[in-house]
Amino acid sequence: MAELPFDVTDARLAAAAWSRIAEPGDTDAGALLAHLGPVEALGWLVHAAAGSGQAAVGGGRAGRPGVERAVGRWAPRLEGLDIRRELDRLAALGGRLVVRGDEEWPGGLDDLGHRAPVALWVRGAASLGLLARAVALVGARASTSYGEHVAVQAAMGLGERGVSVVSGGAYGIDAAAHRGALAVEAPTVAILAGGVDRLYPTGNTALLEQVLASGAVVAEVPPGSVPMRSRFLERNRLIAAGSRACVVVEAAWRSGALSTAAHAAALLRPVGAVPGPVTSMASAGCHRLLRETDAVCVTDAAEILELVGPIGAALAPEPEVARGLLDGLDPVCARVLDALPARGAAPAPNVVRASGLSPGEVRSALGRLELAGRVERNGGAWRRSRPAPRHPTLS
Amino acid sequence: MAELPFDVTDARLAAAAWSRIAEPGDTDAGALLAHLGPVEALGWLVHAAAGSGQAAVGGGRAGRPGVERAVGRWAPRLEGLDIRRELDRLAALGGRLVVRGDEEWPGGLDDLGHRAPVALWVRGAASLGLLARAVALVGARASTSYGEHVAVQAAMGLGERGVSVVSGGAYGIDAAAHRGALAVEAPTVAILAGGVDRLYPTGNTALLEQVLASGAVVAEVPPGSVPMRSRFLERNRLIAAGSRACVVVEAAWRSGALSTAAHAAALLRPVGAVPGPVTSMASAGCHRLLRETDAVCVTDAAEILELVGPIGAALAPEPEVARGLLDGLDPVCARVLDALPARGAAPAPNVVRASGLSPGEVRSALGRLELAGRVERNGGAWRRSRPAPRHPTLS
Repeated sequence: MAELPFDVTDARLAAAAWSRIAEPGDTDAGALLAHLGPVEALGWLVHAAAGSGQAAVGGGRAGRPGVERAVGRWAPRLEGLDIRRELDRLAALGGRLVVRGDEEWPGGLDDLGHRAPVALWVRGAASLGLLARAVALVGARASTSYGEHVAVQAAMGLGERGVSVVSGGAYGIDAAAHRGALAVEAPTVAILAGGVDRLYPTGNTALLEQVLASGAVVAEVPPGSVPMRSRFLERNRLIAAGSRACVVVEAAWRSGALSTAAHAAALLRPVGAVPGPVTSMASAGCHRLLRETDAVCVTDAAEILELVGPIGAALAPEPEVARGLLDGLDPVCARVLDALPARGAAPAPNVVRASGLSPGEVRSALGRLELAGRVERNGGAWRRSRPAPRHPTLS
Repeated sequence: MAELPFDVTDARLAAAAWSRIAEPGDTDAGALLAHLGPVEALGWLVHAAAGSGQAAVGGGRAGRPGVERAVGRWAPRLEGLDIRRELDRLAALGGRLVVRGDEEWPGGLDDLGHRAPVALWVRGAASLGLLARAVALVGARASTSYGEHVAVQAAMGLGERGVSVVSGGAYGIDAAAHRGALAVEAPTVAILAGGVDRLYPTGNTALLEQVLASGAVVAEVPPGSVPMRSRFLERNRLIAAGSRACVVVEAAWRSGALSTAAHAAALLRPVGAVPGPVTSMASAGCHRLLRETDAVCVTDAAEILELVGPIGAALAPEPEVARGLLDGLDPVCARVLDALPARGAAPAPNVVRASGLSPGEVRSALGRLELAGRVERNGGAWRRSRPAPRHPTLS
């Protein structure tokens, strides 16, 4: 094994190299990096791969038996490795590498422990600092127009309240979530499974270019990396860890979005699920979350915010509803008013019998109802007042 | 106050009379009846109403201060009371009075304590014994065709499994629930807010006649009683107490169906809510139940049965879904299969680099995948096998 052609004592280069050497979510790499840091871990790997270094340099210090076995996975990728190429490619695209310790490193990712990424490859105008106030909106690629509508509305509502939307840049719900945020000029973050040089899927290239114009496009694998299935599944843990809560808008009974929700739950992030018609297979996964997990039913941006807000600080408002005949009345008055005929008038003794209340209670209630303008006296008989026209409120 | 014209020492007549004297849910009446029984309570009331009996007969034994005050409500209804008229009316309609102690008395109603009804006025072919295996399906009168469809399907599924559907006979979801049960020839029970002589609402008369042909129509108020608003609300407690679980199919943000669900929850009956589009105001109450209460998300009859079945005895089956590329594989095999190109073949070293696994792991996984028929060897290269056509299962 020859020496690597770049400066392996540069911590940023070493971290970038590790993001190329180890697959996302490789806990052996995570453990090794946590013990040695990227520079020393890389030096150890180079020696270990050469077959000479295990005992001499770090075999004992690596500390996990799995790490030794992992050398078999990592060593083939040292061949021809020159991470400066990928960094040049990123720089040519106007991007930047973000590593732990950088100001914009998303602290939430550290909750992943040994599954945390070693580096992020980032393109876009926004600092990843906005992830501190972000919610993940995810869902099926095979979405319905209902689900897309709800995703757009939710993302718009979150954006208007200064909350960023994180998603995966995929077709369907992901795209709708990004579009909703962009519609209210709120920065949004797409976390991709492949390299950020390739705005995948191709049909979303224009959308992802809009995303990076005001927000960010992020990957933990270097430019040139292919979005393999396993990388999609591991990418989902970044979406979950990189946001404050995870909301599934639409998902089939089995859907990658459910894995994102499971990651979020495992990280103790609140999970929301948007219900839909039970006749729609595209909502079956959301209903499954509601039935089988602690996921909360959410129907709009205000309810999504309740997931993350301090308790009681931002309660979703009750929807306005028309005032009913008996609203705001104590039970006795309500029963008396209810016992009056819908049309016409009735003498008090009739009201007593119809209501099942005592004459005294009826007299008292009729008096209070009259003061409140809810009933009118007409000689010896009583009738309901016509409802006053409702004025538009001024406030 | 004159004597009552009927035999006040007949327990059935006395219970029937009390269902005319006290409004549904009158806890003072419930407490009095629990202490004295209907006969003695009626005798006490007759004397108390005459202004002479409180101290002499039962004032002390009634035991609750509210009961003395309640005489003011009850006494006006003694005037002209002859409960034999209502019983004759019921008999003319082929109905029967059911009181506590009768074989078909629904034991669940006793969970209401002092709010339990004193008697039930019943028409219909079925014994109320079927309530022991009944589920309440309730919902908004202002239903959508979606909600009605779901209610019909759920009631059909419950009926096919020998579970009776209880509802309120109203327009909308109630009617759809009864119709679904009737469609599979399952007896269903309608609990009305007014007397059973009047199959209210008028537009459902034909439906309610079908209900009583095989099931039952029930009220706690005598024939001739008007369905006042307060009686609707109290009727809801009977629907909740008379069934094993309560499912709300569709309900606006404020809806009587939510009061039925609240009664069920207070009685420790399981509550289910059927989700719907968040854009539909007719589902807002169901979503509210899912968010704010312990209601369980249910989407079909099987899931409703899980609410009441012994734990684990009748788990709803998972819906069938198409098998995916990586289903049933261990993580290493899955990653190797995923690393193979979608079309064409790749030599093993390429698979090693693409997968991020060691050569040994890749060799072993390819061998297992070959045995499983998931990959094929082609000279020195490997390719994915074509998926086998799926056979319709025979069972």
